[in-house]
Amino acid sequence: MKRNRLISFNRRKIGAAPGSLVHVGERKIETPRITCISYTLEEIREETVHSATAALTTLKEPGIHWINVDGLHDIALIETLGQGLGLHPLTQEDILNTEHRPKYEAFEEHLFIALKMLSLSEEHHINAEQVSLILGPNVVISFQEQQGDLFEGVRTRLRQGKGRLRKMGSDYLAYALVDAVVDGYFVVIEGLGEEIETLEEQLIGLPDPENLRRIHTLKREMVMLRRAVWPLREAISALQRDESPFVTPSTEIFLRDLYDHTIQVMDTVETFRDIVAGLLDLYLSTLSNRMNEVMKVLTIMASFFIPLTFIAGIYGMNFEQMPELHWRWGYPAVWLLMGGSALGMFLFFKRKRWL
Amino acid sequence: MKRNRLISFNRRKIGAAPGSLVHVGERKIETPRITCISYTLEEIREETVHSATAALTTLKEPGIHWINVDGLHDIALIETLGQGLGLHPLTQEDILNTEHRPKYEAFEEHLFIALKMLSLSEEHHINAEQVSLILGPNVVISFQEQQGDLFEGVRTRLRQGKGRLRKMGSDYLAYALVDAVVDGYFVVIEGLGEEIETLEEQLIGLPDPENLRRIHTLKREMVMLRRAVWPLREAISALQRDESPFVTPSTEIFLRDLYDHTIQVMDTVETFRDIVAGLLDLYLSTLSNRMNEVMKVLTIMASFFIPLTFIAGIYGMNFEQMPELHWRWGYPAVWLLMGGSALGMFLFFKRKRWL
Amino acid sequence: MKRNRLISFNRRKIGAAPGSLVHVGERKIETPRITCISYTLEEIREETVHSATAALTTLKEPGIHWINVDGLHDIALIETLGQGLGLHPLTQEDILNTEHRPKYEAFEEHLFIALKMLSLSEEHHINAEQVSLILGPNVVISFQEQQGDLFEGVRTRLRQGKGRLRKMGSDYLAYALVDAVVDGYFVVIEGLGEEIETLEEQLIGLPDPENLRRIHTLKREMVMLRRAVWPLREAISALQRDESPFVTPSTEIFLRDLYDHTIQVMDTVETFRDIVAGLLDLYLSTLSNRMNEVMKVLTIMASFFIPLTFIAGIYGMNFEQMPELHWRWGYPAVWLLMGGSALGMFLFFKRKRWL
Amino acid sequence: MKRNRLISFNRRKIGAAPGSLVHVGERKIETPRITCISYTLEEIREETVHSATAALTTLKEPGIHWINVDGLHDIALIETLGQGLGLHPLTQEDILNTEHRPKYEAFEEHLFIALKMLSLSEEHHINAEQVSLILGPNVVISFQEQQGDLFEGVRTRLRQGKGRLRKMGSDYLAYALVDAVVDGYFVVIEGLGEEIETLEEQLIGLPDPENLRRIHTLKREMVMLRRAVWPLREAISALQRDESPFVTPSTEIFLRDLYDHTIQVMDTVETFRDIVAGLLDLYLSTLSNRMNEVMKVLTIMASFFIPLTFIAGIYGMNFEQMPELHWRWGYPAVWLLMGGSALGMFLFFKRKRWL
Amino acid sequence: MKRNRLISFNRRKIGAAPGSLVHVGERKIETPRITCISYTLEEIREETVHSATAALTTLKEPGIHWINVDGLHDIALIETLGQGLGLHPLTQEDILNTEHRPKYEAFEEHLFIALKMLSLSEEHHINAEQVSLILGPNVVISFQEQQGDLFEGVRTRLRQGKGRLRKMGSDYLAYALVDAVVDGYFVVIEGLGEEIETLEEQLIGLPDPENLRRIHTLKREMVMLRRAVWPLREAISALQRDESPFVTPSTEIFLRDLYDHTIQVMDTVETFRDIVAGLLDLYLSTLSNRMNEVMKVLTIMASFFIPLTFIAGIYGMNFEQMPELHWRWGYPAVWLLMGGSALGMFLFFKRKRWL
Repeated sequence: MKRNRLISFNRRKIGAAPGSLVHVGERKIETPRITCISYTLEEIREETVHSATAALTTLKEPGIHWINVDGLHDIALIETLGQGLGLHPLTQEDILNTEHRPKYEAFEEHLFIALKMLSLSEEHHINAEQVSLILGPNVVISFQEQQGDLFEGVRTRLRQGKGRLRKMGSDYLAYALVDAVVDGYFVVIEGLGEEIETLEEQLIGLPDPENLRRIHTLKREMVMLRRAVWPLREAISALQRDESPFVTPSTEIFLRDLYDHTIQVMDTVETFRDIVAGLLDLYLSTLSNRMNEVMKVLTIMASFFIPLTFIAGIYGMNFEQMPELHWRWGYPAVWLLMGGSALGMFLFFKRKRWL
Repeated sequence: MKRNRLISFNRRKIGAAPGSLVHVGERKIETPRITCISYTLEEIREETVHSATAALTTLKEPGIHWINVDGLHDIALIETLGQGLGLHPLTQEDILNTEHRPKYEAFEEHLFIALKMLSLSEEHHINAEQVSLILGPNVVISFQEQQGDLFEGVRTRLRQGKGRLRKMGSDYLAYALVDAVVDGYFVVIEGLGEEIETLEEQLIGLPDPENLRRIHTLKREMVMLRRAVWPLREAISALQRDESPFVTPSTEIFLRDLYDHTIQVMDTVETFRDIVAGLLDLYLSTLSNRMNEVMKVLTIMASFFIPLTFIAGIYGMNFEQMPELHWRWGYPAVWLLMGGSALGMFLFFKRKRWL
Repeated sequence: MKRNRLISFNRRKIGAAPGSLVHVGERKIETPRITCISYTLEEIREETVHSATAALTTLKEPGIHWINVDGLHDIALIETLGQGLGLHPLTQEDILNTEHRPKYEAFEEHLFIALKMLSLSEEHHINAEQVSLILGPNVVISFQEQQGDLFEGVRTRLRQGKGRLRKMGSDYLAYALVDAVVDGYFVVIEGLGEEIETLEEQLIGLPDPENLRRIHTLKREMVMLRRAVWPLREAISALQRDESPFVTPSTEIFLRDLYDHTIQVMDTVETFRDIVAGLLDLYLSTLSNRMNEVMKVLTIMASFFIPLTFIAGIYGMNFEQMPELHWRWGYPAVWLLMGGSALGMFLFFKRKRWL
Repeated sequence: MKRNRLISFNRRKIGAAPGSLVHVGERKIETPRITCISYTLEEIREETVHSATAALTTLKEPGIHWINVDGLHDIALIETLGQGLGLHPLTQEDILNTEHRPKYEAFEEHLFIALKMLSLSEEHHINAEQVSLILGPNVVISFQEQQGDLFEGVRTRLRQGKGRLRKMGSDYLAYALVDAVVDGYFVVIEGLGEEIETLEEQLIGLPDPENLRRIHTLKREMVMLRRAVWPLREAISALQRDESPFVTPSTEIFLRDLYDHTIQVMDTVETFRDIVAGLLDLYLSTLSNRMNEVMKVLTIMASFFIPLTFIAGIYGMNFEQMPELHWRWGYPAVWLLMGGSALGMFLFFKRKRWL
Repeated sequence: MKRNRLISFNRRKIGAAPGSLVHVGERKIETPRITCISYTLEEIREETVHSATAALTTLKEPGIHWINVDGLHDIALIETLGQGLGLHPLTQEDILNTEHRPKYEAFEEHLFIALKMLSLSEEHHINAEQVSLILGPNVVISFQEQQGDLFEGVRTRLRQGKGRLRKMGSDYLAYALVDAVVDGYFVVIEGLGEEIETLEEQLIGLPDPENLRRIHTLKREMVMLRRAVWPLREAISALQRDESPFVTPSTEIFLRDLYDHTIQVMDTVETFRDIVAGLLDLYLSTLSNRMNEVMKVLTIMASFFIPLTFIAGIYGMNFEQMPELHWRWGYPAVWLLMGGSALGMFLFFKRKRWL
């Protein structure tokens, strides 16, 4: 059973200068890929560029720009981009640290948001990918670990030019991206919910040790989900309270809705935790029950036959002087005795309600 | 055993524009049904209309209006109504999302309250239905998933024209509706309370595995109840603090009472959780106790007879040279030996207090 | 085993108008009984009246008045009294609802306090009775479910005219009544404490299933106590903070003391909960221990004799060709063999430290 | 095993006037003993007086006064002293109530601090003694239940006149006394810590039921410690925040240090609670482990020999027509059969990894 | 198995004057070692001095000074240094008390920070060392228990003169030291994480009692980590909020980053605690499972053979009158009977799904 790694901070060496850039996490992609989407209400232009400098040049044109970087292991690229955008070295470090917990940080020229993009693998394991967003005036930069994301819907809406997306600023674009990630949490939750229900039915039927492992894995996945959502909730709340100049009032109601969604995710995760804890109790209690039943069968069998076998043993002895052996009704009398013993045990077990 | 589904967010597709309307949850009713009740202190008029436009027309007449919509799957209807009332697209989305947690949101022209209407099925399962309320000046719109609700008492009081209901504004009507829903929680709680008591008596008598399943289901139902009430409590508290222009001071004391009721529900749910957790402990301990008793019987039976059977086995051997077999008092001596062994075991168990 | 009912909200019908008066709970007394005590520093007058109107008349005389109503099922009486005193219909509803949780509510003309009067029955069960107090200028009205209360000491102090009671206002009288109720909690706690100690000693000696039931009942009683005290603590705290015109500064120090007492009760209840939880652990662990011991005896007995019985069985076989049977020292050799086997088992158990 | 009594509020009778003085707790000393220490920077005078009046007279002299009362059962003495010092009747009640939880209360003319002096008996049980302090300008009055305390070090420092004690005011003296009590907590904690370590080593070795009782007692003692320290922490924090005129700024830094110490005690108690809870888990798991091992031995023994005994039983039957008995190689064949059965069981257990 | 000592406050004697200096903890080093590093942007000078006075002299030179003291048992040295720097006696006491919990305290002339430097021994035990920092204008004093620390990276960066370290003030140096310590926590966490994963795999495979001990030790280590990090987080937060004149705004963003790191550590520790608790559940459940399996084997074996052995016993009896013994098909009939009994048991177990 493959499982998510618990933790891996391949952090900078202890004592290294803060802000030294080190890529953290596996290298999930060959070459980083930079795509720039620039749009105004009237037109939209997409292009894939191959260097940080090229990406920075597109920013000088009018319109709103969304630069998406897939792949984080090219440190020079992140550094050039970071310096071009005026990112603090610590922020650059955070972008590269894929184990960073979700956070929001306000700077004078931009906002920084880090969050986890979650998806469910086929065997119902949670895959987590680090996403960092920089929101500046007219620009959103998104950093991901690898290609393939939950942003396709946002791209489609941008291209079609319907709805609010093209009409509103970069803050609404950033909101739309975070919203897409949070929507992904619901998909994960639904998958876990289905699994919990399946498990529950199995446990009420006939539990087996495989269930136990599944309960344990579910617990771990719940812990991961919590770690992704709880700080994100705080981050969005801070973003709302912050009254940042980059966030327009018309976007704020959408942030409030987004905040509501994170609360709902948290709430469901807590509920699931309660239910999964209950499943473990159910499993263990069912086990105890079955053990009890097994022991009862053993005890009943043994208690019935042990005295009988003893009686048979008595008259299997070879003493010369055993008068009973020579009695005419000795053999039937022994059967009566054994029948009486069995009946006694039967009544005893009946009274104890074991039969 | 049928049980409530854990969760089902058939939400809009990931990345779809926020505010896109999708009906969520099962389609519980064939055709939506819109009933409008308009009243002043003097008169009351009830009618069933068949389109959102017709419902919106009634609002132009004087008096206070209560429009109740049963059935949420006709998206066009909700959209027309929503636009006619000036509802934010996100609010329309919330109305359609029957998995939304209870919330309260204040807008400039109206207040939005979402809550869960709970009832107990015959097999003591909790049925939850999403209810959304819009409170505007002189108008309350209520949305439900299906026909049949807890509002019949409010309708009767409106028709009879006694009491405060006809004298006060739309805020009091909204309060009366929420109050009816919260009153329903008490019925659910009472049903659960009775079940807990029955279960408790059974557990103290003779526990069986069916009790275990019932405990598990009760826990789940407590979790559902909590999820319905906890955010509602917050919503009512926010409504109280908000000093909204839609809520008159004379209604505020009723809101305070309502808030008290949600606290009482929460308090009882917490108490029940404690007691149900205690029931599981009781069940498991009783099981352990019984296991102990079973094992004691087995051990006593085995310890009594195993040595005796061994002795009988000895003298069942066919060796040519076994002097004891030829002794005159050999057979009675063996009985004495076995009696001594049995007495020894008896004294041993007596000292251990197992007999 | 009789136990307290978990809950019983015989509330007004769902959807009935808030403030409709319904008596809740059992009818614990035949006819309500109203006693009025009026006092000034110089004199005191006690009388038992038979109607609400008569009680209201006494209020017009000078002095401080304490009207005590025993029995809540005569709704008309409560209503007349309530209207005479200007009580809000919701407050009247609260007085009748004997399942209401303790609360404090400030109105312009009076304060309302609801609390639980607890006492311990002979079998150490907690009896709870709802007490409601109305504190107005120069008047305290107390409502109880039945006759017999903890207020006798207060009455005696009033009659004797010693101490502060006759010198101070109605606020001090209300304080004295609440204080008497809280003093009753200490009696209950002491009773439970003694029971816990008895139980603890029994568990360390020889646990039996009856202990388990007692632990469960104690847990439930702790939950009840907590439900009575926790909101009362909040109520007293609110009363202190409120700077109500009905509470004089000289009474405030006594309220602070009262608040301290509720904290002490809570604190003790929490401690008891911890200890009772520990008792369950102790019980279950002792059970496991005993089970272990039982199993060890069984295993040792079986392991000793099963091989011996097998050996005896071998030589009980009736084969024609069994050379051992004809050996001269066959029989003693078998004894040696069996002795060796028993010694082997003994050493094995010794090494495992089971003997 | 002697243990601390859980609780004993021999409080005033229910309904008795608040402030009525009743001594609470056992009478631990024959005659109360009052010692007065008066000091200035230059000189110090100690005397033992025999009446409250004599103690009050010493207060009129210049210098700083520390009056220490050992023994609380002489109510008249406390009352005279209380009235002489202007103590509120409720404070006098608190001094006598040795079950009072630690508290701090500010009055206009003095501060009142109640706390628990803890020490460890030889059998590692916690002894608690109630200490009350009154801090007025130039005077500290301390009340204890019996002679023998943790204040000897403070007395020595006073007599020697070194350090800050003689130079600073009565507030520093009060601080020094509380500090000595808190220092005593560290001694108690260290004793418990050593015991936990011993217990831990025993549990990893060979657990026995005595450990279980010790774990239970440790839990109880932790609960007692927590009850003593938690409210004291709050009291000291309130004292710091209070900016009382009796506390000089130069003493405040010492109070901050004292507060740090109570935090450290709490922190350690919480850690211990976690560890003791872990010990119980360890004990129970070890028990389960051993049970498992016992059962395995039984099962292996039984499974090996039961089939063999059955085979032997077959050929012990006395049927006339049993061809096997007359075969030449019958007996060796049976041995082969039994050997095969034993080998089969052996392989089975090997595959299950029970051997 | 060696383990960390739970606690050891070799504190000053009870009642001793606060601020009396006593060395606490083991003496981990022979002679204290004082190293002074003084630097400006242009140059850096390192020297090892042998007395506190010599160290104090270096402070008079221009530049920023970092005095590091390894070894705390030379009280005179600490005292001289403390007086030279104007440290409050209580601070000196804190420096010597190696059991002190992490804290931050602001004084007028300097800031005091105490924290724990953690590292992982080869057997994966956490070693804790107390580090105290004094931050004054242009000076940082660090106190450690022994040589060998996590500060080597900081020294290298100072010597190389690259990065920010030489350009910024003593506040940044102090930050760099705390940051190095916190970086060390990540190393510890990673080590524990790896161990948890190994343990998890073993538990899912074949649990053995050694795992149990490891789970217990992990729990204890988590408790220690928490005790180190939790108060440090508070300390850093207080340092941030404090707006101390010793902390320049350009350092503040680094403190914010540091605070983030402590949060991340805490967050991971909490996650680990959850997972380790889950491991114990997994262990115990697996144990129960195996017990169940063992018991089933025993019960099946016994239930199969006990009746068969009884039947064989019957016909081993030596009665004269046993007609069956003389029947021609008696022997095969007995085999049939035994086969039938075995088949019956087989079907019974099949129906119970034990086979």
